[in-house]
Amino acid sequence: MIQFESLFKISYGLYIVCSGTKKHGNGYICNTFSQVTAEPAQFAVCCNKNNYTAEFINQSQAFSVSVLQQDTNPKLFGTFGYKSGRETNKIAGLNLTYGNTGVPIVQDDSIAYFECKVINTIDLGTHLMFIGTLVQAVNLNDDAEPLTYDYYRKIKKGITPKNAPSYIDKSKFETNENTSSSTKKYRCAACGYIYDDSKESLPFEELPDTWICPACGSEKADFIKIS
Amino acid sequence: MIQFESLFKISYGLYIVCSGTKKHGNGYICNTFSQVTAEPAQFAVCCNKNNYTAEFINQSQAFSVSVLQQDTNPKLFGTFGYKSGRETNKIAGLNLTYGNTGVPIVQDDSIAYFECKVINTIDLGTHLMFIGTLVQAVNLNDDAEPLTYDYYRKIKKGITPKNAPSYIDKSKFETNENTSSSTKKYRCAACGYIYDDSKESLPFEELPDTWICPACGSEKADFIKIS
Repeated sequence: MIQFESLFKISYGLYIVCSGTKKHGNGYICNTFSQVTAEPAQFAVCCNKNNYTAEFINQSQAFSVSVLQQDTNPKLFGTFGYKSGRETNKIAGLNLTYGNTGVPIVQDDSIAYFECKVINTIDLGTHLMFIGTLVQAVNLNDDAEPLTYDYYRKIKKGITPKNAPSYIDKSKFETNENTSSSTKKYRCAACGYIYDDSKESLPFEELPDTWICPACGSEKADFIKIS
Repeated sequence: MIQFESLFKISYGLYIVCSGTKKHGNGYICNTFSQVTAEPAQFAVCCNKNNYTAEFINQSQAFSVSVLQQDTNPKLFGTFGYKSGRETNKIAGLNLTYGNTGVPIVQDDSIAYFECKVINTIDLGTHLMFIGTLVQAVNLNDDAEPLTYDYYRKIKKGITPKNAPSYIDKSKFETNENTSSSTKKYRCAACGYIYDDSKESLPFEELPDTWICPACGSEKADFIKIS
């Protein structure tokens, strides 16, 4: 028996993983980052083979991980979760520092960061797992809580990008949702977030034009009416 | 720079990982369990090479993972986190089911469980990482929240076992703790939990004999006065 809902009981944080150089770098949103040994301190991170960042990690054999805070600007999710670095410079304009290995490290909305040197790469099929030893571990902010995947899903109503290891095709869920509902719904073209008039205090059409998608920071104009 | 405090910003859940057979099985408390690919659904779990359970996983090439709920009985932490299955039958008397592969699965205080078949074992030095494909994923309880490592540390004041990948030697912390304090402190001999009279509403000596260690369920008599 496979009950896909049970997979949401697994706890994860949310991170921006970056790699590259001062001249050219890229990053992506990652939920699968964890310490795997204490002595020496080693860490594992999973990266979809299609992610542009995988090329940078393979090349530089290093990566940085920024721990996002609970009220991270949704635009960071839009940029790092739903856009490709092949088409846009994701890290331009951000508050960056560079690690001992030269990798860029995002400091925006980050409460800590880590820098790792890759010592092993494991082929998992669709994804690569990079195992790294710790080069740096820096605390940035003790006043904010780390953002968890659970909080992002439940409170921010964020959507899992297709390249994530935890992505679940919606057709796999048994759903009781009333699809014949007459209330209006709008979907974010960038991330798939649904704005459902029946669940909100304000109908979508009455939202100000400055309103942005709470999951990825896209503009109101990027929403498509779906019912 | 390595600031060990920053490592506590990484989010984890807490799980009981089991392996073996109906006749002979064992388990341990684990914080490093995560999905690593979506298609097919693959999962990774880290296990100290000294853990008795590592022998069972190596032998049966399968494991189960039970997702613990937030108010898990501390005795489960005592049994699975601070005792060895070489000396005690950890799973005796528990509410068990057995997977398709024959591995025992703990259902006590569990809100979901997974069963995986090992397809790859990675040597990380002190630990092994087992990569498994999903055999079963079962939802047990939607009313309780999953227990996170953060909650266990901050709210339950739980202590990380020495065999955990996230164990940090206390000497590595810069601490401002006033060691010349005149208040009484007591340490749990099993898990290291500190009961500090100055931080509690009731002095240790006035606690009833039925009081148990909130981190591992040990008896009051197992505490040693340290100051």
